[in-house]
Amino acid sequence: MVDTVWVLFTAVLVFFMNAGFGCLEAGFARQKNCVNILSKNFIVFAISSVAFWFIGWGLMFGDGTPFFGTQGLWTLGGADNSPATGDGYQGVYGAINWTGVPLLAKFFFQLVFAGTAATIVSGAVAERIRYLSFILFSFVLVALIYPVVGHMIWGGGWLAGKGMWDFAGSTVVHSTGGWAALAGALILGPRFGKYRRDGSISPIPGHNLSLATIGCFILWLGWFGFNPGSTMAADPGAISHIAVTTNSAAAAGILGATFYSWMRLGKPDLGMTLNGCLAGLVAITAPCAFVSVGSSLLIGLMAGFLVVEAVIRFDRIRVDDPVGAISVHLVNGIWGTLALGLFAQDRFTPGTTGNGLLFGGGTGLLAAQALGVATVGVFVFAAASLAWLAIKALVGIRVSLQEEIHGLDIGEHGNVAYPDFVIHKRFPLPTEHDAVGASARS
Amino acid sequence: MVDTVWVLFTAVLVFFMNAGFGCLEAGFARQKNCVNILSKNFIVFAISSVAFWFIGWGLMFGDGTPFFGTQGLWTLGGADNSPATGDGYQGVYGAINWTGVPLLAKFFFQLVFAGTAATIVSGAVAERIRYLSFILFSFVLVALIYPVVGHMIWGGGWLAGKGMWDFAGSTVVHSTGGWAALAGALILGPRFGKYRRDGSISPIPGHNLSLATIGCFILWLGWFGFNPGSTMAADPGAISHIAVTTNSAAAAGILGATFYSWMRLGKPDLGMTLNGCLAGLVAITAPCAFVSVGSSLLIGLMAGFLVVEAVIRFDRIRVDDPVGAISVHLVNGIWGTLALGLFAQDRFTPGTTGNGLLFGGGTGLLAAQALGVATVGVFVFAAASLAWLAIKALVGIRVSLQEEIHGLDIGEHGNVAYPDFVIHKRFPLPTEHDAVGASARS
Amino acid sequence: MVDTVWVLFTAVLVFFMNAGFGCLEAGFARQKNCVNILSKNFIVFAISSVAFWFIGWGLMFGDGTPFFGTQGLWTLGGADNSPATGDGYQGVYGAINWTGVPLLAKFFFQLVFAGTAATIVSGAVAERIRYLSFILFSFVLVALIYPVVGHMIWGGGWLAGKGMWDFAGSTVVHSTGGWAALAGALILGPRFGKYRRDGSISPIPGHNLSLATIGCFILWLGWFGFNPGSTMAADPGAISHIAVTTNSAAAAGILGATFYSWMRLGKPDLGMTLNGCLAGLVAITAPCAFVSVGSSLLIGLMAGFLVVEAVIRFDRIRVDDPVGAISVHLVNGIWGTLALGLFAQDRFTPGTTGNGLLFGGGTGLLAAQALGVATVGVFVFAAASLAWLAIKALVGIRVSLQEEIHGLDIGEHGNVAYPDFVIHKRFPLPTEHDAVGASARS
Repeated sequence: MVDTVWVLFTAVLVFFMNAGFGCLEAGFARQKNCVNILSKNFIVFAISSVAFWFIGWGLMFGDGTPFFGTQGLWTLGGADNSPATGDGYQGVYGAINWTGVPLLAKFFFQLVFAGTAATIVSGAVAERIRYLSFILFSFVLVALIYPVVGHMIWGGGWLAGKGMWDFAGSTVVHSTGGWAALAGALILGPRFGKYRRDGSISPIPGHNLSLATIGCFILWLGWFGFNPGSTMAADPGAISHIAVTTNSAAAAGILGATFYSWMRLGKPDLGMTLNGCLAGLVAITAPCAFVSVGSSLLIGLMAGFLVVEAVIRFDRIRVDDPVGAISVHLVNGIWGTLALGLFAQDRFTPGTTGNGLLFGGGTGLLAAQALGVATVGVFVFAAASLAWLAIKALVGIRVSLQEEIHGLDIGEHGNVAYPDFVIHKRFPLPTEHDAVGASARS
Repeated sequence: MVDTVWVLFTAVLVFFMNAGFGCLEAGFARQKNCVNILSKNFIVFAISSVAFWFIGWGLMFGDGTPFFGTQGLWTLGGADNSPATGDGYQGVYGAINWTGVPLLAKFFFQLVFAGTAATIVSGAVAERIRYLSFILFSFVLVALIYPVVGHMIWGGGWLAGKGMWDFAGSTVVHSTGGWAALAGALILGPRFGKYRRDGSISPIPGHNLSLATIGCFILWLGWFGFNPGSTMAADPGAISHIAVTTNSAAAAGILGATFYSWMRLGKPDLGMTLNGCLAGLVAITAPCAFVSVGSSLLIGLMAGFLVVEAVIRFDRIRVDDPVGAISVHLVNGIWGTLALGLFAQDRFTPGTTGNGLLFGGGTGLLAAQALGVATVGVFVFAAASLAWLAIKALVGIRVSLQEEIHGLDIGEHGNVAYPDFVIHKRFPLPTEHDAVGASARS
Repeated sequence: MVDTVWVLFTAVLVFFMNAGFGCLEAGFARQKNCVNILSKNFIVFAISSVAFWFIGWGLMFGDGTPFFGTQGLWTLGGADNSPATGDGYQGVYGAINWTGVPLLAKFFFQLVFAGTAATIVSGAVAERIRYLSFILFSFVLVALIYPVVGHMIWGGGWLAGKGMWDFAGSTVVHSTGGWAALAGALILGPRFGKYRRDGSISPIPGHNLSLATIGCFILWLGWFGFNPGSTMAADPGAISHIAVTTNSAAAAGILGATFYSWMRLGKPDLGMTLNGCLAGLVAITAPCAFVSVGSSLLIGLMAGFLVVEAVIRFDRIRVDDPVGAISVHLVNGIWGTLALGLFAQDRFTPGTTGNGLLFGGGTGLLAAQALGVATVGVFVFAAASLAWLAIKALVGIRVSLQEEIHGLDIGEHGNVAYPDFVIHKRFPLPTEHDAVGASARS
């Protein structure tokens, strides 16, 4: 009984991360696009819920090939021997038989993870994507792309066979979302006015840092479901250990990003502090169960440094990611997956509080991790690009320049987020079209 | 032990719905009334806590008549055989003996439900009600009206005897709150400026859609306590099943309301998306434990459609409900209660994931549900109207026109919600009194 | 197993109180200092996590002297006999051997408490403190000062031996934070413009009462972890009882502060309502497990009255506390600790729902409580003052007058919280230096 309570408790925390991403991304964007971002981040979990129930779960956990399931594909339609009695399900979703909770508990827990991968994309494509295109892409991601990655690693598929480990999804969830976000950001092109023909970059600050900070607190909270919940069983030693490594990496990520941005940029930028927290959390997601508390601090510190550098560098190569989602989820999803190979203890010892930074996995484990990173990168980037391009051909993916300038809230939704407040007109109508921003317009 | 942990965990989630309603309703109203709404939604749970402890619990669960309890009436004063040992209470609150948790766990769980009924009212009467009147009405609702409904259905009373089912309170909580809100909105009359003498309707957009969206996320979160927690026991099969039907109905409500409003109004309105979510959640509250996942999707989809139509139609008949509370809680409370009769499986089979849409209850069950809907409607509307009118006679219920125009924040509280920001003067002083808005002024 | 689930669930709720304090304090301050407050309240838990892991935990719970631990001091380095098996840790942290959860579960639960003490300080020193100084002070507080208090009371130290009780930390957490806040507010001096030479006081309203209200809801939520979780075991009777006494005190605090401020100030001030809630919660923190529901209502009511008076009186003596943190946490931390002596039942009877207001502890208990209050007051005020003065000498503690006038957001962080919105210029540049505000400038 307590296992199911634990799984539902942690699943609910992960569900709440939708609110966290919504606040963070809306806060980091301009008020004129706020309704659009809130709408995207609100509807995305509804889309995910339907898509994962309809086919995603079956592809991910159904018994079948090394790349996707072929049994119990549709609408959770596997042999249903468990829930009425409360015993653990032991049917055609064999790869997840190791946890003894009812089938619908497994489904719900995995659903909130699938939803997370989808909501990550929202931030990177914000402020210029058509609402309908985002909805369509989210469906494809959760119905088809994410489940294939999940099957390869958590569904008993190809990468699991190669010995790759990913405890709670640095790769399965975060890198997958990150690669899909990168593909979207590249195909959409940057926001109008972000990069100028003279080579300069215009910073576009978010409209509400209170909102962004609430969002980041909610995400940190949600991660106490994400990582400790991935035990899918209330194992006292493991869940206690994972709660502490998760928190330590977040703390180190915050300190790393804050002090590095202080040195690098002259002031401790709040946006960097928040993204440092998320970077540490993403990085510890894969190794949280296998590394010491001391290692988790090192992993988080490195993540905080990486995210600051990545945000600066992606901007330099003109990949416009309004909220830093790619720097957080892709870069640190990769880092965390490799860090597991670097810092894992030589045996599964959750609960070890010693600070030994043992290279325990050996080069074999590290190679398997790298293989996983590369495989998922190639597959998701290709599949997501294909999906974005198909949607572009079908219904278009970017709003008109006029709509982008006046804001997507009015154009896409007919709403205004803050009608009682007087708003600065920060961006006057352009006198010439911006080449970079307009290039991908469809 | 795990049962009590489950009950407290879910109760705490339901408690947090107070924050959700506060944010949703404040966000959907104008900034000039924001402090008033926040104050109402904050104090209402304090009022509920005292009222339900003082007499409400006893009336609801005390052994007694088919309509209210007569034993253990005051201040939880039943024979107290349980908490010291942790065994389940088995005293004069016989109707709730089926759950084996301590008396105070039962009380706390039921208290947060009672508080929800009260907080629902707040939105419908917003932007014109006197603060004191709302406080008095909330006390009456939780001390007297809600417990009678609860006794009839959950306290072993008259409707329970007739075979009516309401798993987590589509009728007990949501319709009750909805009927009380309708009575209040009618007796108060519409806000000044909303409906004009020439027959036109002025939309009055909410001041902060970020706040409203956070609120709705919190409510969705809270429903994972509301419905699965109503097992009041950690039955793995049941709680897993209910978590999934609850979420599926929310998802379908979101999609239904979004796409229907897109067709009906031309754009996907964020307010409709949010209310669609709540509509689906309200509708699944009664049947969540008795219907398949497939049925839950249908129930939610219909709820999403219903809420959009209801919001439009209530506006046409000039029932002014600033946040759509009546459309969400009353209309879909009724729909969910009837849907239980339509979609319940022929036996209690939580955990069935098949998509059979079995008319299992038969016409007998459906008739009992309809009887429950009608009985509660007549009783609550009459009792609430009486209470509103008594309060109107005693202290008045509506602020002065001058105060309404300048905002209740200054008039009632002497506070301003956002003093640092420059505010649009959207509503100039009127040159003539608005007949509709002024009619009910006391 | 369920004990560890309970401890982690409640710890996570307490962790989330960081978000609550962040929202509350940012909302109660001006928008020009919003980023600074959010930054402080976000980074403070990262600092706490490192400080408590590094040395704080060992000082607090390590076996040793009556005032601090001397074994297992560094980085949780006690003999580690528990987590791998999930059995309760029984090593050199003997004072906390009474709970049978893994060492890292104990650590995580205690860490979130330590973090709370630190975050309390943030509000009282807001709008004029240097970011770096706050970071340094937080480290010292969590690494050194808080653990000594904790050791004396919860770590088997001197005050525990004297018979002082403090169930969940009215003194250990809240008074400690409050004394440290008082020392900081005195040494910093008031904000520029708050108190004028002619003796008048300028109210400085907070910039976002929606944010403050969300924050207070989150704190109320978090207290359902703070108090019931302090059982550190899933004892059904105790945790149910504590949930209800905690909530009742909050409710009574809300009602007390609202109606008293209504009488005293003419209107029901929302800020007072929110602080009344927190005051009730702080006051019930020590006695929650030992008093009846009726007593908890009285304790909360008194707290609501006390906080209104304290806010007014601290302002009169020109102790500038922008959010009322000292009135909430210090004044009511003391009240709650003494109330335990006044209202505790004569035996440990969690679950008693009777309303007997028994003077059960006798004068011996009350004297022990008073000794604890005095000891902690003297120690923390002295140690915190020393720390503040050392930091002042080392790096300075207050921003320049120019920076204070223009806002700490630009000066300390280079960020603006709400760049899209038009802001009132409420505070023009001064024509003369304000004597009070400038006195402590370093």
